[in-house]
Amino acid sequence: MSVTYPKGFQASGVTAGCKPSGLPDLGLLVGEPGTMVAGLFTTNRVEAAPVTIGRARLRAGGSPRAVVVNSGQANAATGARGVADALAITARTGALLGLEDDTVLPSSTGVIGEPLHMERLLPALPTVVEALSKEGGAEFARAIMTTDTVDKQATAEAAGVRVGGCAKGVGMIAPDLATMLAFITTDAAIAQDDLHRLADEVLKPRFNAFTVDGSTSTNDTVLLFASGAAGHDRVGPGSGAWTAISGALAGLADDLVRQLIGDGEGVGHVVVVDVEGAHTEADARIVARAVADSPLVKTAAFGGDPNPGRILQAVGASGVGFEPTSLSVRIGDAVVAEAGVIPAAYFAPASELAERARRQMKDAEIPVAVSIGDGPGRARVFGCDLSYEYVRINGEYTT
Amino acid sequence: MSVTYPKGFQASGVTAGCKPSGLPDLGLLVGEPGTMVAGLFTTNRVEAAPVTIGRARLRAGGSPRAVVVNSGQANAATGARGVADALAITARTGALLGLEDDTVLPSSTGVIGEPLHMERLLPALPTVVEALSKEGGAEFARAIMTTDTVDKQATAEAAGVRVGGCAKGVGMIAPDLATMLAFITTDAAIAQDDLHRLADEVLKPRFNAFTVDGSTSTNDTVLLFASGAAGHDRVGPGSGAWTAISGALAGLADDLVRQLIGDGEGVGHVVVVDVEGAHTEADARIVARAVADSPLVKTAAFGGDPNPGRILQAVGASGVGFEPTSLSVRIGDAVVAEAGVIPAAYFAPASELAERARRQMKDAEIPVAVSIGDGPGRARVFGCDLSYEYVRINGEYTT
Repeated sequence: MSVTYPKGFQASGVTAGCKPSGLPDLGLLVGEPGTMVAGLFTTNRVEAAPVTIGRARLRAGGSPRAVVVNSGQANAATGARGVADALAITARTGALLGLEDDTVLPSSTGVIGEPLHMERLLPALPTVVEALSKEGGAEFARAIMTTDTVDKQATAEAAGVRVGGCAKGVGMIAPDLATMLAFITTDAAIAQDDLHRLADEVLKPRFNAFTVDGSTSTNDTVLLFASGAAGHDRVGPGSGAWTAISGALAGLADDLVRQLIGDGEGVGHVVVVDVEGAHTEADARIVARAVADSPLVKTAAFGGDPNPGRILQAVGASGVGFEPTSLSVRIGDAVVAEAGVIPAAYFAPASELAERARRQMKDAEIPVAVSIGDGPGRARVFGCDLSYEYVRINGEYTT
Repeated sequence: MSVTYPKGFQASGVTAGCKPSGLPDLGLLVGEPGTMVAGLFTTNRVEAAPVTIGRARLRAGGSPRAVVVNSGQANAATGARGVADALAITARTGALLGLEDDTVLPSSTGVIGEPLHMERLLPALPTVVEALSKEGGAEFARAIMTTDTVDKQATAEAAGVRVGGCAKGVGMIAPDLATMLAFITTDAAIAQDDLHRLADEVLKPRFNAFTVDGSTSTNDTVLLFASGAAGHDRVGPGSGAWTAISGALAGLADDLVRQLIGDGEGVGHVVVVDVEGAHTEADARIVARAVADSPLVKTAAFGGDPNPGRILQAVGASGVGFEPTSLSVRIGDAVVAEAGVIPAAYFAPASELAERARRQMKDAEIPVAVSIGDGPGRARVFGCDLSYEYVRINGEYTT
């Protein structure tokens, strides 16, 4: 059900013909009147036209309550033409829905630089509007996919309200089909400012905390819609309902993130990096990202050999300051570095310590815990292995 | 001849038995009395014991004129034992040479964490001292290798003085044998401060300007020795000889860097990234590194497809500020992005532009030129492709 699980939302997905595969490539999500929306967008300086427009429409304080998504072309690095195309699509969608242009947000994912196939998208808009339904969440979730092998949907419930969501992609995914998109809905009644706060405090750290190839896309977008259709009073910070809904939203985001990374290109192992003892959370996150993005750690995860020196190398090169003698590293419950030193026992013949760490590397999830001092900063980042399959998917693509 | 090409140096390389391969693993380089040395060391917070000791001995303003290098174990993350081992080796080497301890620098490369095999290294020191010779440069160059498939040596001459050097490794090279080491000699007479200046201004930008996997080792070291044995007057900044020697040194460094990257793990294509128009050289270097280190650009180089959107993605995500409408990208002479836009013609059937870019991707060297504005900052970084072979070398290693 994904985004249509909460009350007050309709969604649909159809095929406009923009992908060589012929799979669904045009999705629409609409909240009932009064729906609020908060957004998170890519930090990439080269941002796609739909990101520019969406960011501006949210900032302008209008009341967007719909998003129209195409997959196959990212509408990034397409210049003025790209902006005009995205505006034309939201204008036409708005007209069909009886809404103002600026209440419809555009979103795109696919090949960077290739212009949108307007001659196919515009004629398909009446169809996708016609197909809108309170059961359309799954069709919507499938229409936004590019190289995803499965759709990613999740639902949750708390304090009498529902939360639903779907997502696609992971990092810059290949063959150069960009972007992570996530659309999340709730039927809670939440004021605009509070919705932004939920997006910033609950969703942002979660969707920023995973990495397949360290490559921030030009199109990354997370939209959080609240319809208020559950029929409760407005929920605000400080209440028990707020805490419960935040928790449900956090769980839903974690669920989608695990689905995303599990479907990452060529991924066989998820590496869960926990860093603690940093001065700040930001520092902890930098260290965790450095470990998760290290090609040497990633190939070690692929090959199944713990190679603790590679983890130390990545932590040390992260740019974050710490005392090397305060550095410790665990792989599962195997302490492979303590006070900055890899135990000599690790290198002994038939080392029990090395064997324990090696067994852990065979698991689908490889937990790596790094402590760099006694500061309060901690962070978790989900990474993955670097496999032949990643190189194949990204390297063998020729047009 | 490498390091013994300039007058006033002796070198040697022998086998102590620290590598499973049984190849030479202990090298010694000694300059005649009066030799000056300047050093560049890793920026990794987790630095190896020999780096800590070498840095301290250079900073103390003593007069080091020898370096003893072992390959096979990095002596990093080995704690107090590692420091004691390195001190013992330089003390014994000094005693055998009739030199003070602190005039001998230690250097190591190999597996991080594994303790030095002192029981093999100490007995081999008399042999490596005995083997010292004015023709020993090649033996020295081979003794410092780990997973290198060829030794890297270079020589040059300018203004009546000679310059020689050798290097090993590239980034963190596998199977987790760490480190880039480079040892460069000249028989020019150069004051200590001026030698540091040459190391900083001529060598540093060059040895910092290449990347195989973006992984800064715990042991990276570049040492520049000047014996003064050419018999000329002392050379200082501002003179024609200084300019000529700087130029020769720059050429020699470029030569060694190309040898290093050409022997990088699984490298089939070198990607030469030139960035211009940045506010500062530092900004330009960050952008160039971001492109060279991008796994999507690297797999594109492996697969032979230009994928210009991936280059734009990497530039935009580098963290450096610029106007997206000022961004242009060339692959060879094919302009694949201008004013932030990938020409629509690139995606046309049988596109001549795409074909031209694709042909360029087949070359051993792939030139990528990025302009991000009209600032004075420019930088060049050498990168390489990401191949199955890289994953195999780094992933299939199991002990």
